Amino acid sequence: MVKVLAKDLFTKEYKDGEEVTIEGWIRTLRGSKKIGFIEVNDGSFFKNVQVVFAKADMEDEFDEIKKFPISTTIEITGALALTPDAQQPFEIHAAKITELGSSDVDYPLQKKAHSYEYLRTIAHLRPRTNTFYSVFKIRSIAAFAVHEYLQHHDFSYIQTPIITSSDAEGAGEMFQVTTLDLDNVPKTDDGKVDYKEDFFKKETNLTVSGQLEVEAFALSLRNVYTFGPTFRAENSHTGRHASEFWMIEPEMAFADMQDEIDVSEELLKYVVQYVFDHAKEEVQFLNDNVDENLIVRLQNTVSEKFAQITYTKAIELLEDADEDFEVPVKWGLDLEAEHERYLSEKVFKKPVFLTDYPKDFKAFYMRANDDGKTVAAADLLVPEIGELIGGSQREERIDVLEEKLKDFDLNPEEYKWYLELRKYGGTVHSGFGIGFERLVMYLTGMKNIRDVIAYPRTPGNAEF
Amino acid sequence: MVKVLAKDLFTKEYKDGEEVTIEGWIRTLRGSKKIGFIEVNDGSFFKNVQVVFAKADMEDEFDEIKKFPISTTIEITGALALTPDAQQPFEIHAAKITELGSSDVDYPLQKKAHSYEYLRTIAHLRPRTNTFYSVFKIRSIAAFAVHEYLQHHDFSYIQTPIITSSDAEGAGEMFQVTTLDLDNVPKTDDGKVDYKEDFFKKETNLTVSGQLEVEAFALSLRNVYTFGPTFRAENSHTGRHASEFWMIEPEMAFADMQDEIDVSEELLKYVVQYVFDHAKEEVQFLNDNVDENLIVRLQNTVSEKFAQITYTKAIELLEDADEDFEVPVKWGLDLEAEHERYLSEKVFKKPVFLTDYPKDFKAFYMRANDDGKTVAAADLLVPEIGELIGGSQREERIDVLEEKLKDFDLNPEEYKWYLELRKYGGTVHSGFGIGFERLVMYLTGMKNIRDVIAYPRTPGNAEF
Repeated sequence: MVKVLAKDLFTKEYKDGEEVTIEGWIRTLRGSKKIGFIEVNDGSFFKNVQVVFAKADMEDEFDEIKKFPISTTIEITGALALTPDAQQPFEIHAAKITELGSSDVDYPLQKKAHSYEYLRTIAHLRPRTNTFYSVFKIRSIAAFAVHEYLQHHDFSYIQTPIITSSDAEGAGEMFQVTTLDLDNVPKTDDGKVDYKEDFFKKETNLTVSGQLEVEAFALSLRNVYTFGPTFRAENSHTGRHASEFWMIEPEMAFADMQDEIDVSEELLKYVVQYVFDHAKEEVQFLNDNVDENLIVRLQNTVSEKFAQITYTKAIELLEDADEDFEVPVKWGLDLEAEHERYLSEKVFKKPVFLTDYPKDFKAFYMRANDDGKTVAAADLLVPEIGELIGGSQREERIDVLEEKLKDFDLNPEEYKWYLELRKYGGTVHSGFGIGFERLVMYLTGMKNIRDVIAYPRTPGNAEF
Repeated sequence: MVKVLAKDLFTKEYKDGEEVTIEGWIRTLRGSKKIGFIEVNDGSFFKNVQVVFAKADMEDEFDEIKKFPISTTIEITGALALTPDAQQPFEIHAAKITELGSSDVDYPLQKKAHSYEYLRTIAHLRPRTNTFYSVFKIRSIAAFAVHEYLQHHDFSYIQTPIITSSDAEGAGEMFQVTTLDLDNVPKTDDGKVDYKEDFFKKETNLTVSGQLEVEAFALSLRNVYTFGPTFRAENSHTGRHASEFWMIEPEMAFADMQDEIDVSEELLKYVVQYVFDHAKEEVQFLNDNVDENLIVRLQNTVSEKFAQITYTKAIELLEDADEDFEVPVKWGLDLEAEHERYLSEKVFKKPVFLTDYPKDFKAFYMRANDDGKTVAAADLLVPEIGELIGGSQREERIDVLEEKLKDFDLNPEEYKWYLELRKYGGTVHSGFGIGFERLVMYLTGMKNIRDVIAYPRTPGNAEF
């Protein structure tokens, strides 16, 4: 008895008639009086293994097996029958089928199709469907591809803190972290919350970005990145926003905006190619069932050099567009998804970098351009998604940065350590951030961010 | 002019006399009237590049350069002089040195040694020291080795949620996550906190483990793992505990306790070997300066088969030990670090798995053994650290699990989805958790967890 994995059966060489044993879950089962068919999935591979069982081979148990509910866990021992000309390249002719774990007739995933909304309510079971099996396999493979590309290019992975006492970019919408008793919040004499009683002896929040913290490491280890969870307490109910999501934030010393643009393009292409190579069946399934343009879009991403124009030029293109935008276009507008998608889908038909954005709606740490109006920021806009990557050269000039903090009404005392990165051997440096869930949506064709997160957190929803 | 990296200079072939340009930070600088020496580090490699500059070659700037403070960012162009018989295999004879970023004479990292305590107060600068450069390089390399081993063994990476509404193992010490205004907490009519007003419409916390959530994926994708931050709001001030730390939690369907023991041993060996291969200079430095037993201990980890005994046998060994333990030993005791270290350091002199612990101090989800007293749990104890890995076979029998929930005073309604993983095709499954910071301590010889975390969070400390 040789225990085998479905993955091995589909990808390695076996002899016709070889006896194998496989464990897995029943995906479908149908039977007549004398013969039955089971599709079993063992988790190791997208495809199911076809099992044939006959009353003649297992007189007593045959009728029992025929009644197994979907998702019963079974072990099958039998002979491999190679069927190279059939759609299924092989099947197992069962000599013995053993129940390892029972299931129930009220199993929520019967053969009919279920809505994504319903499947979100059974997030613990939905990876058993073809669609979500594919999504979470691709998510895993893409995460590893990110690590592999960066590590093989000498980027060091830094885990920046999740709990933070700084409010990063001055973004207001943060989750507070506390051990105070909310039934009975301790107060100071003047009636304010007494944070001396809190766990960290001050007010703390969940991070919105690890960028500032990782910059310190770029100025010592040169090429670094974060890859971890970030949080926004925005009361946003769109299919593009979640309250908890993962970000990839590479940061490079001795690199300018064009350098970070080039690295981000190369990284994205590497990830797409890696997913093609390591999740063929899953990508094909999603292309056939979820987004018929998926494979073409991804192939295009790998093969085409991305376009690159300035924000100012993009505004001209949008103003000239024969298109009714919901939000009217003019210089100074922070582009909406509709504009971003128009540029990448209609004008360039591929990913496009926009550079040199107006300083007014970009973060304080982005390097001021000489025109006094724009900063050295670059966003990558892609079809279907809009903004996928946001990067910039960072302001390395301490005097300019100090002015910027004032302009943004940020407390220089809180950024003392950040300013010191410029005081003691600053240098040109740049970085970018990729919203990992948006990347997974791009790679899978899924349209709602809730459907690419294992257990999504959105306003009013923190189940499981 | 060819821009090169220090890493390339130390690891690739160059011709004597070849002209190169390198950017980096001054680590040391000394000069006489006519000649000066700079050790420059560019972040790409542990070792510094030796630069020689002469008054004869740069008449005017020579005296300026000699005054550059430590950590000034410079660009050097010059000829490579290969010195294969010297301690340094090469040096650069500078033709031109340009300042890219100034530093200051009050730079906090002067050449003298600093205490780890002091360096924690300048966490943004400490990766510029040899010790912390090494620690964070090794941390990065070890993280990648974990991903590589698991991905190459078909484990899928699942990002389980950070914000959770369940209290996992019934652990009380959690951080609360909220958007309620603490100055003015909304109350219901009966005077309790009105969580309907909170962001998620219920009480939420930071996760202490992703295990339960990732089990759902093991029962569909077979081999899975989490690798992410976890949190404990314990008011603990030891060198072994942090409030925020990363955990690696693999979980496997169709695997029993012995299977998870075997995988965890193979994974640990893989990571140690990978660090040896990819951070030679860093490991050597830490062995020479931080922990003189480091290399021997790590080599031993790779080459020796780990020991394995039952908890009951371990208690016998400890009772027979000629050693004064602070906490006296008897069956039923949850072992302390002193006991764990005695077993691995004195008795076995290598890592040792303890199995089949008393059920009373282990989690509810661990599989009950037939003796009625113990569970199928396995902890790996290692020299210097104590417990490094904690694993178990999970209880797959729904009736036994329901009894356990009662025994642990946990609400079965909250675990309904977790019970359903047993109701609909359960199977033997197992997993383990590695505290990533403890692993990094083991790999680096550092003795305080605060010194292996980029920006450590401990009671009263959430700086940066």
